[in-house]
Amino acid sequence: MSATANAASGSSPSNVASYKIIDSTLREADQWATNPLSRDTKVAIAKALDSFAVDYIEITSPSSSEQALEDSKAIAALGLKVEAGVGSVGLVVGASSFSSDVSHEKSLEKIQESAVEVISYLKSQNVETQFSFEDTFRSDLVDLLSLYQAVKEAGADRVGINDIIGGTTPRLVDDNVRTLRGVIKGDIECRFHDETGCAVGNAVTALEAGATHIDTTVLGIGERNGLVPLGAFSARMLVAAPEYTKGKYNLKELKALETVVSEAVNINVPYNNPVTGFSAFTHKAGIHAKAILNNPSTYEVFDPAEYGISRNVAINSRVTGWNAVRSRVDQLGLVMTDDEVKAVTAKIKQTADTRPLTIEDTDNILHAFHAELQKA
Amino acid sequence: MSATANAASGSSPSNVASYKIIDSTLREADQWATNPLSRDTKVAIAKALDSFAVDYIEITSPSSSEQALEDSKAIAALGLKVEAGVGSVGLVVGASSFSSDVSHEKSLEKIQESAVEVISYLKSQNVETQFSFEDTFRSDLVDLLSLYQAVKEAGADRVGINDIIGGTTPRLVDDNVRTLRGVIKGDIECRFHDETGCAVGNAVTALEAGATHIDTTVLGIGERNGLVPLGAFSARMLVAAPEYTKGKYNLKELKALETVVSEAVNINVPYNNPVTGFSAFTHKAGIHAKAILNNPSTYEVFDPAEYGISRNVAINSRVTGWNAVRSRVDQLGLVMTDDEVKAVTAKIKQTADTRPLTIEDTDNILHAFHAELQKA
Repeated sequence: MSATANAASGSSPSNVASYKIIDSTLREADQWATNPLSRDTKVAIAKALDSFAVDYIEITSPSSSEQALEDSKAIAALGLKVEAGVGSVGLVVGASSFSSDVSHEKSLEKIQESAVEVISYLKSQNVETQFSFEDTFRSDLVDLLSLYQAVKEAGADRVGINDIIGGTTPRLVDDNVRTLRGVIKGDIECRFHDETGCAVGNAVTALEAGATHIDTTVLGIGERNGLVPLGAFSARMLVAAPEYTKGKYNLKELKALETVVSEAVNINVPYNNPVTGFSAFTHKAGIHAKAILNNPSTYEVFDPAEYGISRNVAINSRVTGWNAVRSRVDQLGLVMTDDEVKAVTAKIKQTADTRPLTIEDTDNILHAFHAELQKA
Repeated sequence: MSATANAASGSSPSNVASYKIIDSTLREADQWATNPLSRDTKVAIAKALDSFAVDYIEITSPSSSEQALEDSKAIAALGLKVEAGVGSVGLVVGASSFSSDVSHEKSLEKIQESAVEVISYLKSQNVETQFSFEDTFRSDLVDLLSLYQAVKEAGADRVGINDIIGGTTPRLVDDNVRTLRGVIKGDIECRFHDETGCAVGNAVTALEAGATHIDTTVLGIGERNGLVPLGAFSARMLVAAPEYTKGKYNLKELKALETVVSEAVNINVPYNNPVTGFSAFTHKAGIHAKAILNNPSTYEVFDPAEYGISRNVAINSRVTGWNAVRSRVDQLGLVMTDDEVKAVTAKIKQTADTRPLTIEDTDNILHAFHAELQKA
């Protein structure tokens, strides 16, 4: 049993080591940001997504406004390596009793009739198509299976399930994806919102159960609590399928990509953002810091160097330990015995009890202590 | 199949509707914050946790410094309703090949011998005890089972499993907790770090598999990416077990609790924080906004009023729809036909294409349009 032993059990084939990423940042940012994105900003985001090498970029529906149409043309003209959503169409229909009561009154039969008609037309035009229900987890999946089969037979390239309210759990995802996998050959796309904090857990579980494509956004932006954050998902998959993940995606581009997007929609990268949050690779407590310095994998699930990020052991705290201080003493080129390092560690802990210490403060304490030793 | 159908399948009893919360904010904040917390701040956090009504408050180890000892005494003296970790002791031992190679060289036999000795002594003093391994998910759980049994027989009140590196997934959690549940009667505590975004998904899966206690921190603070965030976890459990969650915890205290902690450790509440993030209950896209106004549960997994928070439909965007605008028109007391509302909606979308719109801007457009109608 290890952190990388994520292969699905049971009959479904796991796609943990063959998943694809459909990034919806451009679409969601437009719906979500207080201010509309300029075309230059959209182009910068599209280019950064291309550098990271996501598999698909989903764009704002060109029908939502004249400007959106022109922006879509500009992105299509960039000649990105990635599939930029202009040669493919996604159809989304609400099917739960909630949305069919409220948003429209179409019966499942009517939905099937319209969907088959649209997909048949799109296929006749050689357009890649995806079909999904908006709120699969509050629908009766068994009722929907025949509809999924019908759209698949009509030529849909991919079917999708969608937790638009962020209400599902890994266990329900496992049940639903296995059921759908049992009747549908080919690609299954999953979209998970994050209102109850389970989006990434749901995504990896979906792949284990046989889904093939996961929808993400950079930093998880999107209506309400957004959806699967690309960074957290990439970290999850770096652990679950390191070779595939490192070989396919340019992880070192994540930080630049997140910077472009956070500036575009005017948000801060959360302090606890996986991979790039400011404390993600800072270690402080004494016993942890000792182990980190000896063997980083003791308290790190992956090497931050995979993302081009370096680790940091903070010693400016009452819970620092003498091993971490020893490392800093050595970095500073100060010569001390272990007993002397232990003595100066006690001094740091004592000072940290009385006032906040910066890294510079602790360095000053080390230098002053060393100077005293030289004098004695 | 519904979002609330979270009962565990199989032989393990689900504790989704009987879970308990052990909050580690005070301990983690002290390890994590740049500056040590003052005693007043610690007391304020302890009181806010008591108001929310978590089941246990874990405090900094009183042995870490003189100051920590004095602070612990002050919190113990508050007379909180909650168990404040002063009458109970948690023992944590690293057992994976990673930490036993590095952090110490004790064999499992020696660990067992010491653990049994300490637990027997604590029980003789009537102290509640918890025993856990630090890195259960990289250890061979089968090897650890006899040790868990030994400490349980020695009188440990609770055993724990611990994903200190944030590397596990719901599927592995399910496997591990079921295995442990099979040999241990009584309480099982789980601690999940969030480096790969699965902490909340792991927590609910653990409860479904038979765990009883979940460790949380407010806003998920803690070393590196922290652990299960109390707010996201409460939202997850509000959906999974609404009656138990609402009856046991004072959800309306969450926002105040998060405010105290974010100020204490000098962080911002992330924009996408479940429940309290600024966009958690703001709806913008036209088709969603229409449904929200008719029936909020279409796009909301729970009612924000459970947390004393109100929802908001933004109309200052190109993707607004005329139903949302109709609602704002009515709120402003302006009289318009549906066709007139559709006309002014087109105007808003057109303007939003050319420049950023605030809520005040859109209100001005509505008023100006209404004035034109009056003149005509």
